[in-house]
Amino acid sequence: MQIAEYMNQLGSQARIASRVLAAATTEQKNHALHLIADALVARAEVIIAANLLDVAHGRTLGLDEAMLDRLSLNEQRVRSMAEGLKQVASLPDPIGEITDMAYRPSGIQLGKMRVPLGVVGIIYESRPNVTADAAALCLKSGNATVLRGGSEAIHSNQAIAACIKQGLIQAGLPEYAVQVVETTDRDAVGQMITMPEYIDVIIPRGGKSLIERISNGAKVPVIKHLDGICHTYVAEDADLTMAWQVCDNAKTHRYGVCNAMETLLVDAQIARAFLPEMASIYRKKGVELRGCSRANEIVAMTLATEEDWSTEYLAPVLAIKIVAGLDEAIDHINTYGSHHTDAIITQNYAASRRFLAEVDSSSVMINASTRFADGFEYGLGAEIGISTDKFHARGPVGLEGLTSQKYVVFGQGQVRH
Amino acid sequence: MQIAEYMNQLGSQARIASRVLAAATTEQKNHALHLIADALVARAEVIIAANLLDVAHGRTLGLDEAMLDRLSLNEQRVRSMAEGLKQVASLPDPIGEITDMAYRPSGIQLGKMRVPLGVVGIIYESRPNVTADAAALCLKSGNATVLRGGSEAIHSNQAIAACIKQGLIQAGLPEYAVQVVETTDRDAVGQMITMPEYIDVIIPRGGKSLIERISNGAKVPVIKHLDGICHTYVAEDADLTMAWQVCDNAKTHRYGVCNAMETLLVDAQIARAFLPEMASIYRKKGVELRGCSRANEIVAMTLATEEDWSTEYLAPVLAIKIVAGLDEAIDHINTYGSHHTDAIITQNYAASRRFLAEVDSSSVMINASTRFADGFEYGLGAEIGISTDKFHARGPVGLEGLTSQKYVVFGQGQVRH
Repeated sequence: MQIAEYMNQLGSQARIASRVLAAATTEQKNHALHLIADALVARAEVIIAANLLDVAHGRTLGLDEAMLDRLSLNEQRVRSMAEGLKQVASLPDPIGEITDMAYRPSGIQLGKMRVPLGVVGIIYESRPNVTADAAALCLKSGNATVLRGGSEAIHSNQAIAACIKQGLIQAGLPEYAVQVVETTDRDAVGQMITMPEYIDVIIPRGGKSLIERISNGAKVPVIKHLDGICHTYVAEDADLTMAWQVCDNAKTHRYGVCNAMETLLVDAQIARAFLPEMASIYRKKGVELRGCSRANEIVAMTLATEEDWSTEYLAPVLAIKIVAGLDEAIDHINTYGSHHTDAIITQNYAASRRFLAEVDSSSVMINASTRFADGFEYGLGAEIGISTDKFHARGPVGLEGLTSQKYVVFGQGQVRH
Repeated sequence: MQIAEYMNQLGSQARIASRVLAAATTEQKNHALHLIADALVARAEVIIAANLLDVAHGRTLGLDEAMLDRLSLNEQRVRSMAEGLKQVASLPDPIGEITDMAYRPSGIQLGKMRVPLGVVGIIYESRPNVTADAAALCLKSGNATVLRGGSEAIHSNQAIAACIKQGLIQAGLPEYAVQVVETTDRDAVGQMITMPEYIDVIIPRGGKSLIERISNGAKVPVIKHLDGICHTYVAEDADLTMAWQVCDNAKTHRYGVCNAMETLLVDAQIARAFLPEMASIYRKKGVELRGCSRANEIVAMTLATEEDWSTEYLAPVLAIKIVAGLDEAIDHINTYGSHHTDAIITQNYAASRRFLAEVDSSSVMINASTRFADGFEYGLGAEIGISTDKFHARGPVGLEGLTSQKYVVFGQGQVRH
């Protein structure tokens, strides 16, 4: 079968399944999630054996140790995948919620009902646990899913897919509610992102180049997570101890994550009091500092270049800039940032209000570490990604981001005059 | 100046203006709207003179009378444009609203703040009043706007743009907050829809071919309004009198609108009781009926073809199909409809619940005319379009559809453990 034909078949099966899923009860969906979790545990050995094939193949391809680690499954990891499915089952079902019910002057009663998006396409790399996680979130939110994992994890993903299929069938839900693309042909992705008749939204999970490639080629909406160039601005009247603690945490709690701080902005009025101790904290932890010339007048460090202001290091490196005040800080963030997460440290009421209103990011924080920008910390229960778009879902995306709202009208025979 | 360079300049000016607008107070925005309304009335003669040029030119181009009517302005129409602006000023300001505030276990307090999208691009045809209406809605919702009207209305649009500019300047807002593209070069549209760095969303207003062309070429999200193939399903246990009245209204109240019924689905159990009287009501009003073979067994009418089920007539023509029951009705609507507005007439509780949940349309109604699907009837105060997408805004789009929500976090120095 040709790739286009194969993908169209998957899409058309998903579309049909999505209508059944949209009408499935909460109990049915939760039951399926538990059955899939049980199947994963019961078949852990089969999954791990399939995974060994992928890891061995990955070694011959020369994948680095970090990638091999992300790819690897063991019994512990399979169990935690199953645990994740049960947690999704325990979350409230977003579907069917009706809000904003009100009578209109015409006599009709109007509200908004939360409904699934339809069919969600997920395109991801290496980590096979995404297969189970993403399928669970889409299933709970009543969406059918087409999953396309990386070729390096194909055996693992197929083994997990078999468990999902078994759980769906046992629960009486359509087996095509979750489909894992079985070919490693690259053309499958091109086809998948250009069939709006079958797929309502694409969620890419992976590196920046993958996401840009998909965004550029897609003919359907994309919920995309690009860079996290997060800032903390230490304002003139920050509490110094708080500033040291929060800035330490925002940079050093974890380096390779999108909500880690990459640029520290310091108000010129507080720089001499704040920066020397801050620099000493970072240096004890081995963080390389790259500062503007004014920062260098206070503490000697590498001189930052223009490029540093728009770099997501994902590493123990921090750019530091002295700014004249709130205006310059906001301007810098809106110009060089990635609209992900930015924080101000201040005791000033007016400054906190302006920072909240004027910084154009998916999360804006006062006196807190940027590391809090995360679906679990925000109480979403789970996260399928962090959207740096403004459209539809913004910031950490949980179940609600996989839904839409339609208007519902209750009448007693009203006609329009 | 080259077109690309010109459009980039407009875009970059809009981006800068959007930051000022995002921080503008409700009072400033309302003041600007009133000043623009005053300028329109004060310069009505100039606007009408410019419009006469467009209408005269339109005649030489051979535009039909309906198009010329949509294009024409007179003092009455200019006044009602000004009235519209004042109405938008009187609507509540959506910007800055914070909802869902809650403390998280970490001690941070989390909420969602409503903010503008940024820069909205509007691409529209003939009606010059869109220039003022769309600018007003974008301004009120804190967005900068780039407006590209049809070449047939270029003089009218420029005259209205001058009033908008005057009002903005008098209110102390950036003159680039609303910009009307001054060239009629078609390449301007191609450029406008492919500059995501400057324009956050495109709203096309016009015929289906315009909207499809823009959707296909756009590199930014599009809030699009395609067909309105709306259905009414008269269920087995409908109240007959109510069904006649509602179906009459849904089809004949206005023919050329997107929320008019185009296909009537009738349950086989009620068809003999319902259809003869219904057909007689429609025929008195000159509506051409095109029915399936089973409908023809009850009332003689044109035999419908497969094409009729997916046609938006926008005319006194109605397709009629007899269906076996609720399942077939829902299936027909989800297959042939345009996900716009669909209604059921029934006294059965379970049928009404299933119809609401399973019909995948932006408005789903029980015992009411599809004609109610409209921003004013829904209490949005105004409408920039009706979205047939599921993503972001769905159904009638008012001020809220021109906004986004960002997460705001209030802390007292919290760090992540």
